[in-house]
Amino acid sequence: MSFRQQHLLGIAPLHPDEIRTILDLADSYAEAERADRGHARALEGLTQINMFFEASTRTQASFEIAGKRLGADVMNMAMQASSIKKGETLIDTAMTLNAMHPDLLVVRHPHSGAVDLLAQKVNGAVLNAGDGRHEHPTQALLDALTIRRKKGRLHRLNIAICGDIAHSRVARSNIHLLGKMENRLRLVGPATLMPAAARDWGVEVYDDMAEGLAGCDVVMMLRLQRERMDGAFIPSEREYYHRFGLDAEKLAHAKDDAIVMHPGPMNRGVEIDGLLADDINRSVIQEQVEMGVAVRMAAMDLLARNLRAARMEQGVMA
Amino acid sequence: MSFRQQHLLGIAPLHPDEIRTILDLADSYAEAERADRGHARALEGLTQINMFFEASTRTQASFEIAGKRLGADVMNMAMQASSIKKGETLIDTAMTLNAMHPDLLVVRHPHSGAVDLLAQKVNGAVLNAGDGRHEHPTQALLDALTIRRKKGRLHRLNIAICGDIAHSRVARSNIHLLGKMENRLRLVGPATLMPAAARDWGVEVYDDMAEGLAGCDVVMMLRLQRERMDGAFIPSEREYYHRFGLDAEKLAHAKDDAIVMHPGPMNRGVEIDGLLADDINRSVIQEQVEMGVAVRMAAMDLLARNLRAARMEQGVMA
Amino acid sequence: MSFRQQHLLGIAPLHPDEIRTILDLADSYAEAERADRGHARALEGLTQINMFFEASTRTQASFEIAGKRLGADVMNMAMQASSIKKGETLIDTAMTLNAMHPDLLVVRHPHSGAVDLLAQKVNGAVLNAGDGRHEHPTQALLDALTIRRKKGRLHRLNIAICGDIAHSRVARSNIHLLGKMENRLRLVGPATLMPAAARDWGVEVYDDMAEGLAGCDVVMMLRLQRERMDGAFIPSEREYYHRFGLDAEKLAHAKDDAIVMHPGPMNRGVEIDGLLADDINRSVIQEQVEMGVAVRMAAMDLLARNLRAARMEQGVMA
Repeated sequence: MSFRQQHLLGIAPLHPDEIRTILDLADSYAEAERADRGHARALEGLTQINMFFEASTRTQASFEIAGKRLGADVMNMAMQASSIKKGETLIDTAMTLNAMHPDLLVVRHPHSGAVDLLAQKVNGAVLNAGDGRHEHPTQALLDALTIRRKKGRLHRLNIAICGDIAHSRVARSNIHLLGKMENRLRLVGPATLMPAAARDWGVEVYDDMAEGLAGCDVVMMLRLQRERMDGAFIPSEREYYHRFGLDAEKLAHAKDDAIVMHPGPMNRGVEIDGLLADDINRSVIQEQVEMGVAVRMAAMDLLARNLRAARMEQGVMA
Repeated sequence: MSFRQQHLLGIAPLHPDEIRTILDLADSYAEAERADRGHARALEGLTQINMFFEASTRTQASFEIAGKRLGADVMNMAMQASSIKKGETLIDTAMTLNAMHPDLLVVRHPHSGAVDLLAQKVNGAVLNAGDGRHEHPTQALLDALTIRRKKGRLHRLNIAICGDIAHSRVARSNIHLLGKMENRLRLVGPATLMPAAARDWGVEVYDDMAEGLAGCDVVMMLRLQRERMDGAFIPSEREYYHRFGLDAEKLAHAKDDAIVMHPGPMNRGVEIDGLLADDINRSVIQEQVEMGVAVRMAAMDLLARNLRAARMEQGVMA
Repeated sequence: MSFRQQHLLGIAPLHPDEIRTILDLADSYAEAERADRGHARALEGLTQINMFFEASTRTQASFEIAGKRLGADVMNMAMQASSIKKGETLIDTAMTLNAMHPDLLVVRHPHSGAVDLLAQKVNGAVLNAGDGRHEHPTQALLDALTIRRKKGRLHRLNIAICGDIAHSRVARSNIHLLGKMENRLRLVGPATLMPAAARDWGVEVYDDMAEGLAGCDVVMMLRLQRERMDGAFIPSEREYYHRFGLDAEKLAHAKDDAIVMHPGPMNRGVEIDGLLADDINRSVIQEQVEMGVAVRMAAMDLLARNLRAARMEQGVMA
């Protein structure tokens, strides 16, 4: 097996073969679910704890469904921002949970790097469900699986990632993943929402949708992350939609068979035209959600295998 | 099998035979529970999602227990009113959940009709756990089962539904169900809490408890729904209790063996005298709660059978 | 079997043999968990409801993990203080839940005695997860198991319980348990946080850490319960730490192999020095959390056996 990680903290540490291993297993889980064939109880007897320090109905639900489908005992911990003001308290919380012997810890946190820090303190496998502006690896994996299923491959594609790049962990994880797979990437967005460092990332940078989308196979829209824009210039929604919101006219610059993606939840009429989002000939937004469950099943299954193997080895050595 | 529905959105669409099918199965579930015989794992492998856009500790707990007793993977989604202000967002939420392939969706919503709308967008079976002033079908079914067990039949009974008719989905669902079963129905309440249309519903209307309860077999009290009374005339609690609160004196007008019902949670000393509510010779309020779990088990079991049959058929045709 | 209780409401009603029975079973659960041997599904088919009228992330998580590891269907009820203002409403809530036939009810409540009251109204087994300043029996049991594992015995030890005795149910349950086991107990804390009655409890009372800790085998720190100090004198945190916070200097008065305990969550730099809390040669705080899950598994297992036996007997007599 080519997946050797103890945790899933980001896309950056993964080898392309490890990404393919996750996607292949996720694909088979997705097909089994569509065919109502049921799933192996790969996580039977394991405890999965979802610790969301930032509310997220859809991502938490996706991880919960994924764990329960594979037979895990799943718990949602209500983490209040107030109880984790100090860094030391996050660690205390982690150590406390660790003493209860969870096997899988799914963590979302508003601060970049908090999930990595937590992973150093616990014995179980940690999955990053989004930390600050850093990484959101399962989102990039579900995007990749959706693209691969729709386009038949995951390399040598022209892919535009559009909108609020600066505040987006989704963009960062996707840039890592799609870059590793040798695609041509363009970032499109207003200069105020484009990180200064973007030009060093091996991508093309545009502030015009027509230019950025020209000849693209995939158009990936991002959510405006207003909650992370402290003090930054925020364009009016109307102006933003006019220049950067995806509609049929702007999409016409991409290839005729280009697919449209969005990680959700959408701001219709701001980032994307509502009718286009619902157009099943172009939009793959619902399939992204569907693949999200499959990718999380695969990631937790693979991490649990490594966890069990490591414990077996420790047992043999003890 | 005579239960042919894809969803349970209300009592209005049900045939009397379908109602009897649910009640018969619920009765056997209730007896198995009382005898500690355990339950078939009829929902094993299925995902049940409880989406409560209005808080309800008891109804949500009842659906959760019902699902878990039958082996379903049950998830509670924390739906905040703030995230569903726009109609389109309710649909986006529904579409997102639908992409995760839930089998049973239990939905409570403050707006009449919202659950029907949602049911049109999803593939799983939807159960209405109460929508605005419209319907609350499992409440009417549990009331019916309680009456049938206590009175030995569910037809040709004199039944008074008393209190805040105007704002009550419980009243509406009960009027549908008890009417279909050929009972004699009376609505009793202050004119300000009686819908103008009530006189067209094939029921008798009273604004005096003594007259309304005369000769009744069943006295069904309703909760004052203050949260739904925007701008309407609200009587003082004291005055309300004096004229419409059920006590031993008013109950004396009903038959000697009349039973007393309330959907809960009760406002003791407003809708009903506390001692009377606790009098196990007259009050069947606890049995209503018990039958609630049984009815929800039965409804989800029957819907799951239809869901599986439909999927099998699609598989054969594909 | 020497455990004959129907409920676990406190340590006060338990016979020392019953305490030993719980600790022995908990110890075997803890070892099975450490060796990854999996657990008997002792609670399969049973419904466990966690009713927390006071928020507690760690205790609720511990009970939830314990129940799920043993195969129970576990439900968390969101109890809002607002809905339980009146005493009668607590009883209504209890009666409503009781009608749904839960087998195990885990209850935390801000008022001393509320859990006992509730236990009188329900058919299932009730576990007190902390009520006001009264008792917190599973905390005392996990403390006892931790001490027994570290010290090799649970009798004839010198044990100091330090800090906010007045507001602590943890202290009360520990005084009961450790007293029954014939240990020498000292309470150490400022006079303003020491109950007047403490001198009648058969313990020694100190207001100086050096004197109180002299020659101790176990130093048990308590959390400052500011939320329960309405109107009482509250020392500044700095002053409190100076006089009563545990650090290496104060600990030097205890035996060289004395262990340090804290029920959590800790206020580092107030009740205890952060470095000392993390010193795995002295602090057993993480092991307390670990034993917490094991003790709750054992308590629920034993209560479920008694519940099943009682039901069997009722069935035979019926």
